[in-house]
Amino acid sequence: MKITGIIVEYNPFHNGHQYHIEQARAITKADVVVAVMSGNYVQRGEPAMFDKWTRAKEALLNGVDVVFELPFAMAVQPGHIFAEQAISLLHAVGVDTIVCGAEHPDYQFMQLAQLPIDNHRAFTQYQQTYATTFYQELADQSGIEIQLPNDILSLSYAKAIVKNGWTDTINLQPIKRINAAYHQTALPSGSIASASAIRKHNVSAVLQYVPEQTAVDLLNSTRTSDFATVWWPFIQYRLQTAKIEELRVIYQVSEGLEYKLKAAVEQASSYAEFMQLLKSKRYTNARLQRMVLYVLLNVTTKQMQQTLAQPYLNLLGATPVGQKWLRQVKKQVTIPLFSKIGAQAKQGIFALQYQVDQVFTTIGNQSVQNIGRIPWRINDSTTLQ
Amino acid sequence: MKITGIIVEYNPFHNGHQYHIEQARAITKADVVVAVMSGNYVQRGEPAMFDKWTRAKEALLNGVDVVFELPFAMAVQPGHIFAEQAISLLHAVGVDTIVCGAEHPDYQFMQLAQLPIDNHRAFTQYQQTYATTFYQELADQSGIEIQLPNDILSLSYAKAIVKNGWTDTINLQPIKRINAAYHQTALPSGSIASASAIRKHNVSAVLQYVPEQTAVDLLNSTRTSDFATVWWPFIQYRLQTAKIEELRVIYQVSEGLEYKLKAAVEQASSYAEFMQLLKSKRYTNARLQRMVLYVLLNVTTKQMQQTLAQPYLNLLGATPVGQKWLRQVKKQVTIPLFSKIGAQAKQGIFALQYQVDQVFTTIGNQSVQNIGRIPWRINDSTTLQ
Repeated sequence: MKITGIIVEYNPFHNGHQYHIEQARAITKADVVVAVMSGNYVQRGEPAMFDKWTRAKEALLNGVDVVFELPFAMAVQPGHIFAEQAISLLHAVGVDTIVCGAEHPDYQFMQLAQLPIDNHRAFTQYQQTYATTFYQELADQSGIEIQLPNDILSLSYAKAIVKNGWTDTINLQPIKRINAAYHQTALPSGSIASASAIRKHNVSAVLQYVPEQTAVDLLNSTRTSDFATVWWPFIQYRLQTAKIEELRVIYQVSEGLEYKLKAAVEQASSYAEFMQLLKSKRYTNARLQRMVLYVLLNVTTKQMQQTLAQPYLNLLGATPVGQKWLRQVKKQVTIPLFSKIGAQAKQGIFALQYQVDQVFTTIGNQSVQNIGRIPWRINDSTTLQ
Repeated sequence: MKITGIIVEYNPFHNGHQYHIEQARAITKADVVVAVMSGNYVQRGEPAMFDKWTRAKEALLNGVDVVFELPFAMAVQPGHIFAEQAISLLHAVGVDTIVCGAEHPDYQFMQLAQLPIDNHRAFTQYQQTYATTFYQELADQSGIEIQLPNDILSLSYAKAIVKNGWTDTINLQPIKRINAAYHQTALPSGSIASASAIRKHNVSAVLQYVPEQTAVDLLNSTRTSDFATVWWPFIQYRLQTAKIEELRVIYQVSEGLEYKLKAAVEQASSYAEFMQLLKSKRYTNARLQRMVLYVLLNVTTKQMQQTLAQPYLNLLGATPVGQKWLRQVKKQVTIPLFSKIGAQAKQGIFALQYQVDQVFTTIGNQSVQNIGRIPWRINDSTTLQ
């Protein structure tokens, strides 16, 4: 049985994603396509526009057989940790191939991943980000300049496979991304646009780029309240009341950033200005935005470490093919697999996810996210049961 | 020189308050009437409807000569601590008489204050509030049942004077309150209504009960956002993200209330329901509401103790008579007297006030409250300079 894994955010699900799934299935001749998908917060440190259930449904009605949540602790991370954690979940359920989008699918990512890069040098170059230094050294050694976001992610997947010694069990299959650029916000002709562009335009302007279920959700589902307006007073409130020692225990708040956060919130009159005040050469915008989100959600280093030390799978839904395969997986998988979250989830290994999703519900204006929610079971006529 | 002190909240200032000031001045033949006024949060644990500056201005244009802020740490407290702290500030500036409203001004509050009440017994009656037990014992000993809110406050002032040994230097002068009941919310005929009633009705219905400046403020000033609607998501957010050990260090969160707070916010779908879930025989609504406010504002026991150990006076404004008197006071007073708050106030003895006022600004939708604000200087033609 051929099991193909994909690592996704679907913020929201669009035609480009559907095309990617079709290609993945065709190239790998997969019996089952399994996605691990960022939950209510995406990798760059923002709430997703729709909740995880809405986005999982979109995926299941458009070619994915099983959707697992990539938990907060794994998803809201620098790319290389995001990649490593997602790969580890896909490995846990026994996928044999991972298909990923890349700007240059012809690059030999698995070979590049095995080059000896001096991490120490990268970490001590304080005038530029870690990533910049890393890719410079990679270019020096290989002659290949990895610069584009999906190439970078593909390399991260490769490195995770190499690091874990899974080169014999997992095959990485990069495929060409067909839309022009990841963060392009203008709407192109044709039927494929970036998720950023789709988020930024009115529903009527984007219907041509999304399948039916996403169109229905754009028209009817509750979007998460706008981060820069509705969430911003909560960030202000949090930083105005938090003590320095309370900020210092937050994940990624180090090197005096606790003082900088307090000072920036004093000065800033908007979220954009606040982020501008935090910026320095040492940190990327995404790094800073994730840090602000950790602060807002009160995610401590200790919680993050504890959560990452106890990986689990949270099922968001499956098609009939996926449901059949899951019955096998449940017998074999060695980490906990939740297919319904009970009230006991407030403590234990699901506690951090519960905490951050509660805030998503409160500030994001969303329905209950966990306790009592039953994964989608898509039936053969592709309607929801 | 005769200096009369009053202890007030002015939420908002109305005709009953004006009448009270006139009486105070007439009875005591005061040269100067000095008010200590709750700042942006009132004694019962809620944000005031207007900020401290707006309310101070109303007072200064209607008979009060000097307004000092009763700082958060002193004001948002059980009645007996509120009373004790307010008395201590008035003592610090040298008032010789304190005039207070009482339902029964004929009661001998100073004598009642000297009865030996067994506090220990009161504290160990877990089936009723501390206050209930205390007033039962007082009634047993004196035959007088103190039940009404202003009688209770008057007795608290008397007890504070007795406790500090100031019976020879401060004279307590209760006067009859003329409006029917403290918390009455219906609008009566005539020109005097309770502050609660005024807060609850439309501007047009309450103009007859307030002097001109309050009318102007009701029409033009920014009211604090509604507690039960706009502030409620922040309470939810705070309790959803706070860790048990973070709640345990909050002032007045004891006896397992940290768990009760977490459980109640999980269940409640509104602020009213939340408060209902917290209620028990042991705690009054006001006690619980203050605790929720301490949690929201992240006021720890340590901060509260440090702040109360370093009393200070924060001037909100003065009339010409008040300004003249203040020049003398400044030479004599032994605690710090701020007449303008600079940026250094973020640390040190003003830090707690700064913290809670920042939240008032953010959630309450108010302008800057402290740094750079200059006290009102009312001139002789009673217009603002």
